Amino acid sequence: MSVLNDALNWRYAAKRMNGDTVPADRIERILDAIHLAPSSFGLQPYTVLVIDSPALRQRIQDQAAQQPQITECSHLLIFAAWDPVEESAVDELIGRIAAERGVPSEELAAYRDTIKGTVRGKTPEQRVEWAARQAYIGLGHALSAAALEQVDASPMEGFDPAELDHLLDLQSQGLRSVVLVALGYRDTDTDWLAGLKKVRWPRERTIQSVG
Amino acid sequence: MSVLNDALNWRYAAKRMNGDTVPADRIERILDAIHLAPSSFGLQPYTVLVIDSPALRQRIQDQAAQQPQITECSHLLIFAAWDPVEESAVDELIGRIAAERGVPSEELAAYRDTIKGTVRGKTPEQRVEWAARQAYIGLGHALSAAALEQVDASPMEGFDPAELDHLLDLQSQGLRSVVLVALGYRDTDTDWLAGLKKVRWPRERTIQSVG
Repeated sequence: MSVLNDALNWRYAAKRMNGDTVPADRIERILDAIHLAPSSFGLQPYTVLVIDSPALRQRIQDQAAQQPQITECSHLLIFAAWDPVEESAVDELIGRIAAERGVPSEELAAYRDTIKGTVRGKTPEQRVEWAARQAYIGLGHALSAAALEQVDASPMEGFDPAELDHLLDLQSQGLRSVVLVALGYRDTDTDWLAGLKKVRWPRERTIQSVG
Repeated sequence: MSVLNDALNWRYAAKRMNGDTVPADRIERILDAIHLAPSSFGLQPYTVLVIDSPALRQRIQDQAAQQPQITECSHLLIFAAWDPVEESAVDELIGRIAAERGVPSEELAAYRDTIKGTVRGKTPEQRVEWAARQAYIGLGHALSAAALEQVDASPMEGFDPAELDHLLDLQSQGLRSVVLVALGYRDTDTDWLAGLKKVRWPRERTIQSVG
């Protein structure tokens, strides 16, 4: 075993949380792990909204099947894919790389054209899906980081994206919500899932050697 | 900083690797982290193919823009989404949960119906996208785990999925390749990317507080 896998065995998607606040330094480290996540071409085509306001979380809960962990958690993360993914973002990325690495933008022209070619080859809907997949890499980082911080993290797809986007006015910001994560602490007294055995497919079904 | 974030700052997507073999125990721990990744309803609708055969990796390289890390790595992972995602898999999952937790399947009927309702609500293409997103959570775990093991991991979307699926006969196995990861060791002498500053959007662009 490793420290990470011990933590991943400890974690589960808590359905009930106890309302305790996760210390700011732990939240920041979890968010850093998301920010450090790689993405296709380094475009990071998503935004993570961090919500600790109880009042706002209550309104979000109304769009998410009344799941209790949304109000019982400490912080709610909303992963929102960029929609649309525009070519101008590629130009921004090239400018950012040039500035950060101190190279002329012209040297990155071939890279820019490769990325733009990939973007152009996708329909608007395919671009959003592509962006959503990148967000899910960040989600994987968040779940790993939270487990290592001994913070419970419950990912949720069970919400109404259109209603949530409307509530938070995401469309006007060029965003579309794709997945939520509640960060907090499990309430072992009330959570029916607490203490139940973790179930995965037999490892040989998920992981297969070939060749 | 945390141990994870130190590791994530160390990691980058190595474009050239030195051919050294990653010890089996490290590979297994990285694969365990994928196997432990959560997924929507716990369905884990993807398979990870592990390929160490140099001959097979050479043939895969032909379908992946000749990226050198595919043959210079130690192990190549292919994340393949289930296609199709069938309702029978939901029945299997319910059977698995019942057996692992020692509860009668009938007690899980409502859960089964919820999952089936979600599956039925998606087109075949939406199901594959849904499965692909779950695979990307596993990808995020793999990248975190590899970094903690000081193993380089290069995720790759730049390949021809249809050709790769044909080469590995994935369609007949109900699989569709969605992303690759090369696991190995960076070759700092030949990799132009080695040592370059990691570039991310300003943190406040990716991570935003709301409410």
